[in-house]
Amino acid sequence: MTALALDIGATKFAAAVVNSDYSLRRVRRVAAAVVDPWDACRELLGVVAHDMRVTAIGIGAAGPVDVPGGVIGPLNLLPWRDGFPIVERVRALFPDAVVRLAIDGACLALAEHRVGGLRGVRNGLALTVSSGVGGGIVADGRVLVGRTGNAGHIGHIVVPGDDTPCACGGFGCVEAVASGMSSVRWARSRGWTGETGVELATAAAAGDPIARAALERAGTALGQAICSAAALLDTDRVVIGGGFAQSGEPLWGPLRAAVARHAGLGFVRELTVEPSPIGDGATLVGAGVLAVEA
Amino acid sequence: MTALALDIGATKFAAAVVNSDYSLRRVRRVAAAVVDPWDACRELLGVVAHDMRVTAIGIGAAGPVDVPGGVIGPLNLLPWRDGFPIVERVRALFPDAVVRLAIDGACLALAEHRVGGLRGVRNGLALTVSSGVGGGIVADGRVLVGRTGNAGHIGHIVVPGDDTPCACGGFGCVEAVASGMSSVRWARSRGWTGETGVELATAAAAGDPIARAALERAGTALGQAICSAAALLDTDRVVIGGGFAQSGEPLWGPLRAAVARHAGLGFVRELTVEPSPIGDGATLVGAGVLAVEA
Repeated sequence: MTALALDIGATKFAAAVVNSDYSLRRVRRVAAAVVDPWDACRELLGVVAHDMRVTAIGIGAAGPVDVPGGVIGPLNLLPWRDGFPIVERVRALFPDAVVRLAIDGACLALAEHRVGGLRGVRNGLALTVSSGVGGGIVADGRVLVGRTGNAGHIGHIVVPGDDTPCACGGFGCVEAVASGMSSVRWARSRGWTGETGVELATAAAAGDPIARAALERAGTALGQAICSAAALLDTDRVVIGGGFAQSGEPLWGPLRAAVARHAGLGFVRELTVEPSPIGDGATLVGAGVLAVEA
Repeated sequence: MTALALDIGATKFAAAVVNSDYSLRRVRRVAAAVVDPWDACRELLGVVAHDMRVTAIGIGAAGPVDVPGGVIGPLNLLPWRDGFPIVERVRALFPDAVVRLAIDGACLALAEHRVGGLRGVRNGLALTVSSGVGGGIVADGRVLVGRTGNAGHIGHIVVPGDDTPCACGGFGCVEAVASGMSSVRWARSRGWTGETGVELATAAAAGDPIARAALERAGTALGQAICSAAALLDTDRVVIGGGFAQSGEPLWGPLRAAVARHAGLGFVRELTVEPSPIGDGATLVGAGVLAVEA
């Protein structure tokens, strides 16, 4: 029995062979192929599969996805934005294999639930805060799928603050306020001259007032969205990964303060919010879980 | 096989015998007993059970609840606010019966899913908008329970607008902005002189500008909270019951406008929000579902 994992991210593709304990071997990563992404995926899968008889393949993909249809439409991957039948194509490559698809947020939740910060948790949230804000939900012991496979879009919870237009077409989504990219944009509109989330975090740590205000704004919005989700789902454990979540106390202080302020109900007051113990590559691990459990 | 349903509401208690098609017979209702609620519940159950051999009892209760512990602590029922072991007490009355407890919002979702507006829906929300704002969640075909049985607390999603303190201890919850009681309070603080949600709706229908503004504010907040929940859960169907939801176009117009404005993601744009087809008593029907399916 050989299981493979494939991660189709907005900026990176990765594939690996998955062991039965969800650890990975033969991991290969490439930059997301903006011209012919299918060629790049096929090559990755071929290299990691080598001459093994593949029995299961798990695919994690940037959203939105159409899981019942087996189609992905990652917003940041132009050739596939209008939909690519990834399940059908992978099945054609490996006709004997079971192929399972999930959105990256659900893969994140699977990874945290099986080997990360949500082990043993029946109701929890896994978040990623980087250029965007995404996540996945563990509810009553299962990772939620949703009607079209898009459950976990915590980045599009509406939060107080400004009514910023969001890339999704809506207004005031937490992603439009609190992602790394949104925070950089906000800080630059106020005269800060850096360009990346990492620079923003460094500037905040050094005491730059605009950078500190940007991270306070982001942390507050994240804390509010987390409280909304925790009340709705009766969840007591949230783990957060992603590059912008590494911004330290200038982000986490306001985040925890907002959680403390908005968590009124008794069952929400027990909420703990912690950094994810899984580093980069959680989506690939989660795709591996899909394959091993197929 | 005889199944009973018991509904412990903030203002009313009810019990009935449940048929296998979830319809109810021998329905009895009394005002919530503020002095000795257990006496009232025992009497209700005794009357509807008569001399039948009871095999299953479903209990729906106003929250918060502790379902794993079998304890309820309805906020508006003073003698039980600190917790009452309802499951143990009912079990002592009917030692041969299976006893199941759920929060009223989960009962609402069960009722809508089996016989109401969420029939055939694998991912939906049931809301009640009355003196408070509550609800229940159908996710991947099941009604969510949550860690302590409190999943579905949509009333405590944080929304933009004012940072009103909420009875839960938090701030800016949709219940603190959009419930009948909150809307009446807001209108009165601006000079309107009525006292109930029904009067407010009547005044709005007659063109009173403060009443219209109060319902616009409530509808907008409800639409925002619904969009947040729908994005998080990948849900395309929401049904709303409860007295204040009967306020007509002055509430529903702004609600639908807010949904249209905030539903940016493709999978959320297909969202439909409709009045519940079940009238009063949905919690009792849902408690009946618990019993029949026990």
